[in-house]
Amino acid sequence: MDAERTEIGTLGEFGLIDHLTKNNDTRQAGTILSIGDDAAVIDQFGKQSVISSDMLVEGIHFDLMYTPLKHLGYKSVVVNLSDICAMNATPTHITLNIGISNRFSVEALEEFYEGVYAACEQYNVDLVGGDTVSSQKGFIISVTAIGEVTPNKFVTRKGAGKGDLLCVSGDLGAAYLGLQLLEREKKIFLENSGIQPDLDNRAYVVGRLLKPEARVDIVEWLAEQDIMPTSMMDVSDGLSSEILHLCKQSKLGCVLHEDKIPFHDETREVAYKFDIDPTACALSGGEDYELLFTVKQEDYDKLRISEKISVIGYMTEESEGAQLITRNGNKHKLIAQGWTAFGQ
Amino acid sequence: MDAERTEIGTLGEFGLIDHLTKNNDTRQAGTILSIGDDAAVIDQFGKQSVISSDMLVEGIHFDLMYTPLKHLGYKSVVVNLSDICAMNATPTHITLNIGISNRFSVEALEEFYEGVYAACEQYNVDLVGGDTVSSQKGFIISVTAIGEVTPNKFVTRKGAGKGDLLCVSGDLGAAYLGLQLLEREKKIFLENSGIQPDLDNRAYVVGRLLKPEARVDIVEWLAEQDIMPTSMMDVSDGLSSEILHLCKQSKLGCVLHEDKIPFHDETREVAYKFDIDPTACALSGGEDYELLFTVKQEDYDKLRISEKISVIGYMTEESEGAQLITRNGNKHKLIAQGWTAFGQ
Repeated sequence: MDAERTEIGTLGEFGLIDHLTKNNDTRQAGTILSIGDDAAVIDQFGKQSVISSDMLVEGIHFDLMYTPLKHLGYKSVVVNLSDICAMNATPTHITLNIGISNRFSVEALEEFYEGVYAACEQYNVDLVGGDTVSSQKGFIISVTAIGEVTPNKFVTRKGAGKGDLLCVSGDLGAAYLGLQLLEREKKIFLENSGIQPDLDNRAYVVGRLLKPEARVDIVEWLAEQDIMPTSMMDVSDGLSSEILHLCKQSKLGCVLHEDKIPFHDETREVAYKFDIDPTACALSGGEDYELLFTVKQEDYDKLRISEKISVIGYMTEESEGAQLITRNGNKHKLIAQGWTAFGQ
Repeated sequence: MDAERTEIGTLGEFGLIDHLTKNNDTRQAGTILSIGDDAAVIDQFGKQSVISSDMLVEGIHFDLMYTPLKHLGYKSVVVNLSDICAMNATPTHITLNIGISNRFSVEALEEFYEGVYAACEQYNVDLVGGDTVSSQKGFIISVTAIGEVTPNKFVTRKGAGKGDLLCVSGDLGAAYLGLQLLEREKKIFLENSGIQPDLDNRAYVVGRLLKPEARVDIVEWLAEQDIMPTSMMDVSDGLSSEILHLCKQSKLGCVLHEDKIPFHDETREVAYKFDIDPTACALSGGEDYELLFTVKQEDYDKLRISEKISVIGYMTEESEGAQLITRNGNKHKLIAQGWTAFGQ
């Protein structure tokens, strides 16, 4: 029917969104920040709300063979709250739409909702609306999260300055290894259903995949310390693609020190068993839901006292590009190899 | 796997949502109204926002054989804005998540977004965020709409009083007939693809299905006339099921006069051709997206001057139940036969 047909895969996920939203006008005076960051910012009568929305599709974003429904409910909420945190805001409300095929029982949905409610309780967030519809195939989850932020204290991806310190919360790479482990066990199980999954001593990496947390605590800690990040986003894709977003939006380059990237001991151990470099897991894995942000150098002393935050590099002139300094002192150009949603 | 398995169809759509949300606590002091109405109301620093979310699934809610993508984009926005209007609020922002299979081209998505932007322009609403993901099958659309309302001027389903007048905007039943027409033409086309659809002089009923409008104008008109509805909702399912919601939530009965139900001439004409009673289309059809509301009797003189609003009945004691008075003067009990989302 179409005279022209451009395959979606040719644009990539970000290219597609950019393309479709390039003619998006704003009309409301209250729209402070629209599409293009972790969340939008809306001014309502002088106060500011932050809003973000995500969709998760069975078979694309999760595999029910190894994802307990309760964990899925929890995670569906958390990944959206993480976007709110990435704006330096505090989540307050969510709406939840689900599409389900008749393969699911009421009991299965109850389990899913248990996870949703557990996340609401954990993060002091209210579920205030949503829709439950039939799907033709699989389970589809769409969550919108709303948060509040002190007026003009929201933090975007574009405010970093030259010399600012590049920081990340928690540790990285574990969720990717959790996924590799579960995929391996699934394969073994499909070949021989008598073999039960062997996940002993793997609770950390598997937990990071199945039950991530949103770093509300980091947002609170930064406020307590009176540290205002100059730019921020959450690490949902790999660290390298996220750093490149910050660089591009802030029109800067950066230096990332491999030896400063934080890992959990179990992450290192599992990576070595899989014969993967843990650094590759951090750079190109995903779903860590940690906060990546920049701060002014003068905040360094305040940051040092926190065990939750690692300084992993610093911002440079745009012309210097994004550089990775390896443990051996070699310089590499940082390239994005994060998960791609379209056209593998 | 489950010891127990309750089929979703046994609960029905509303039963399922009620069941899943019965343990939903609110924690935020700002949550004024949660699940159970057309939209939620959130108090933000003394000002009030209204939020609503809907999901549309290909093959369940729309058929791309006869739904132009541009119309679909427009309608996806409008059905959510209608929920905001149903709270006596004005829509301001939306987020849009879509799931698409690789069957769709970039050009097809551009068409869909054209419709989304047309609706945003028409209703002075900003698209501020969203997600674009792969789906395993079909097209999935999830929209969240946000609006603003003068503090405590939002209108729920539960405020009607005995003797209040039952009113509806515009006319009813057309969208249902538009659907019957398009389904008939699809069947003919599938049997013989040489026959082109015959939709001459059917622009109104087809347009009501494919390109509904949200009655922002009614909300504005009511405010101008200083009429505060005592209860309100939008007519997305059939009129009878919506009236029963108002009765149940307001703990009242009602009398509905068949001869007062407003119809467009084309609706009557098409109904007769299909040998369906137009009243049945209004009562049990759906997707009219008109506003159903109650007002105090003293507002009758103000209402009379509007051609956009019909007074179709009045509220009675709960014990009297919901009654339909037919053109012949017979009394019938009003029963819900609206579209059901699950287990036909």
